[in-house]
Amino acid sequence: MEFKIVGGSIVTMSERGIIRDGCVIVEDDRIVDVGSRSIASRYHGYEEIDADKCVVIPGLINCHHHIAMGLLRGYADDLILTEWLEKWVWPFESKLTGYDIYIGALLTSTETLLSGCTTVNTMYHYSYDYNEAKALLDLGMRGVVGHVCFSWRREDDLKLIEHLYRVWHGKDGRIRVSVDPHACYTVDPNYLVELHNLCIEFNKKNPETPVILHTHLAETEDEANRVEKTFGVETGGSVVRYMDKLGVLDRYTVAAHCVHLSSEDISILARRRVKAVHCPVSNLKLSSGIAPIPAMLREGVHIAIGTDSVCSHNRSDMFETMKFAALIHKGVYKDPTVMPASLVLKAATVSGAEALMWRGLGVIEAGYYADIVVVDFRKPHLTPLYDEYSHLVYAVRGSDVKYVMVNGRLLVDNGCITTIDLEWLLDEAIKARDRVLERLHS
Amino acid sequence: MEFKIVGGSIVTMSERGIIRDGCVIVEDDRIVDVGSRSIASRYHGYEEIDADKCVVIPGLINCHHHIAMGLLRGYADDLILTEWLEKWVWPFESKLTGYDIYIGALLTSTETLLSGCTTVNTMYHYSYDYNEAKALLDLGMRGVVGHVCFSWRREDDLKLIEHLYRVWHGKDGRIRVSVDPHACYTVDPNYLVELHNLCIEFNKKNPETPVILHTHLAETEDEANRVEKTFGVETGGSVVRYMDKLGVLDRYTVAAHCVHLSSEDISILARRRVKAVHCPVSNLKLSSGIAPIPAMLREGVHIAIGTDSVCSHNRSDMFETMKFAALIHKGVYKDPTVMPASLVLKAATVSGAEALMWRGLGVIEAGYYADIVVVDFRKPHLTPLYDEYSHLVYAVRGSDVKYVMVNGRLLVDNGCITTIDLEWLLDEAIKARDRVLERLHS
Repeated sequence: MEFKIVGGSIVTMSERGIIRDGCVIVEDDRIVDVGSRSIASRYHGYEEIDADKCVVIPGLINCHHHIAMGLLRGYADDLILTEWLEKWVWPFESKLTGYDIYIGALLTSTETLLSGCTTVNTMYHYSYDYNEAKALLDLGMRGVVGHVCFSWRREDDLKLIEHLYRVWHGKDGRIRVSVDPHACYTVDPNYLVELHNLCIEFNKKNPETPVILHTHLAETEDEANRVEKTFGVETGGSVVRYMDKLGVLDRYTVAAHCVHLSSEDISILARRRVKAVHCPVSNLKLSSGIAPIPAMLREGVHIAIGTDSVCSHNRSDMFETMKFAALIHKGVYKDPTVMPASLVLKAATVSGAEALMWRGLGVIEAGYYADIVVVDFRKPHLTPLYDEYSHLVYAVRGSDVKYVMVNGRLLVDNGCITTIDLEWLLDEAIKARDRVLERLHS
Repeated sequence: MEFKIVGGSIVTMSERGIIRDGCVIVEDDRIVDVGSRSIASRYHGYEEIDADKCVVIPGLINCHHHIAMGLLRGYADDLILTEWLEKWVWPFESKLTGYDIYIGALLTSTETLLSGCTTVNTMYHYSYDYNEAKALLDLGMRGVVGHVCFSWRREDDLKLIEHLYRVWHGKDGRIRVSVDPHACYTVDPNYLVELHNLCIEFNKKNPETPVILHTHLAETEDEANRVEKTFGVETGGSVVRYMDKLGVLDRYTVAAHCVHLSSEDISILARRRVKAVHCPVSNLKLSSGIAPIPAMLREGVHIAIGTDSVCSHNRSDMFETMKFAALIHKGVYKDPTVMPASLVLKAATVSGAEALMWRGLGVIEAGYYADIVVVDFRKPHLTPLYDEYSHLVYAVRGSDVKYVMVNGRLLVDNGCITTIDLEWLLDEAIKARDRVLERLHS
């Protein structure tokens, strides 16, 4: 289909900066022209999207998520980590069927999309029929889907990854897969290396559609200890150094959290071109701490942004996450100039695309994929306007999103989702929750 | 008018806790009955508000604001404090007319109300014709309005306070006034004592409608130094101890920020029954630091919550502010059990009412004022529901607010403001901004 998005400020995230009273032309899955409003007249018969008094941005890219956990939001909060996991989250998850996972993933994705995010990087237990990939496909979103791997189920994992890769990698141009060791304290060193080699193999086969290695890294303080106790190996107190010595850190590595890092760790991440995913809301809620993002940026570490699951964020809203990312370091470092708005928006767009190694995302320019978000600025909290970056990071709410396009398809039209019946989904989510609770208490 | 709000969970914030599938009956400005849905049938001819699949809460109370600054949102960000104030904020403010202040205040109040806050405690330069009080009155909101006092304009201040008190205190049952020394480093000790005495006088005259003393306290690290340098007095390094020795701290004192406190300071605030207003978002954005709220709560300091202006928060949304208040201390103290959701909601309702010494607010019970907010939970980010407190603090956005009632009057109806023409207001705000910029650059 062909669209012209007319009017408003186009925040291109390219060297062209912001085009005011602009126009974006879309044909099929691509952006084909970007300029001032006047170019609109060149394109006849294109469906027009009115972006007057709006701001047009590239679709936001959420680089760390577990979208399947949609049914667990608010099930348990304000608890110490072990109690939260062992008494609440894991027992609940053990009762989820594939269909429940699908409904949870659809629920989270719907919220994510309505809040202006078009691409999500997600990790969960893969199952054959219903899974996260199917939810993204059905909704029309773009995503990288991984199966979370643990030492204790290595054989099953490898079968599941093989299936995931075969069925889903490259699907519809919108789904890619990743290799996801859960973390270095739950995956033994041999298995870590094996998974890393699998990733390399995949990338030799299809260098055009890279497979990333998605993992949790340095989220909590005790990880090095846990590695040493569990696997009887030396870490020298640093999981980053340990993983680097195993040879599993490289530019394909997408490392969520990166909270507890020494300056040597930061240097390693920069040297290995690891993509660090900052998840500030989750890190606060689970008391993990505050990642040293300004120091990492100074040393040249690549920084993207993620929400983490709605269990530890409670809202899959990248706008809210950007605000936390922009503010928390100003308070901690006592410097209001760190993490300025434009840098944070870059982390949530351009740097997100680079982290996932997905070319053609994160920028509004001819040749890029038509993943576009139109934010309605005709609101009391967004009027008047001085600086688009400032409003986008500090004042916009996910609910201000008016139109969302993914791969040239209009998925959110005037704030409403077009590809699924929202009322059906909400009813299904309630029924799924009831079924899980029944299984739990029977 | 008479209303019945039928269905949904009523989060009473009283010892009755949550009433599921409940009903709230309103007559004139008061709540007259609260119970299960079945009580609805007793009240005939009352206008019905459908709260099915909603959560009903007391109107949120924002205890520190400068609502007049609505035109400055996003005008300047990510700058060091002195540059921000001296090169940007103050020059802009010097060009504001009374009408601009009124429009700015109306703009902020509208956003505030749409986000579920019904009462605001605000401080700004008072002017006779157009001012913050008029904006709140016209919109239908409830508020405490103060004129900010500085040593350099003592005589003008005292005239303005006299006018503010005479014209506005008790107006329409919705407006009260406060006495607002800006801070102890901008108000000399004699003037501080004078203002405190004025507050005492007012309270002798009208003990039924208390006048609070609203000030900024310990927001930045260097305040004691500034007091010593400016006024040539000893502080012993503590502004709290200094103000206590002056005798100006008591249960009428509403102290915004309270970031830089020693344990002795905390004891003083508790002993004097000072009301501390936690403004976590502003404190992060301006790099003030992080207030020691968990320690203050342990010592018995009264804690309310405020946004501060949209210049330093960029969103007058108490839901967002509650989330920051709940999360930031979990991360800093590395303890996920501090600041649980129900405690944070209490700070934004019951404790806010107590801080402003406004009886009859913050609770949904018979006899209380009908300041009521209905939040629509039929959303993908609020479905399914396990715990109302968790969703209210961690997952609700201000934009989920469906109905807002203040003093028994329906001000937000199905998400739309009923008392002003929003389109007119947005146009006026843009015109006002343009006029100010023209004056600035001419």
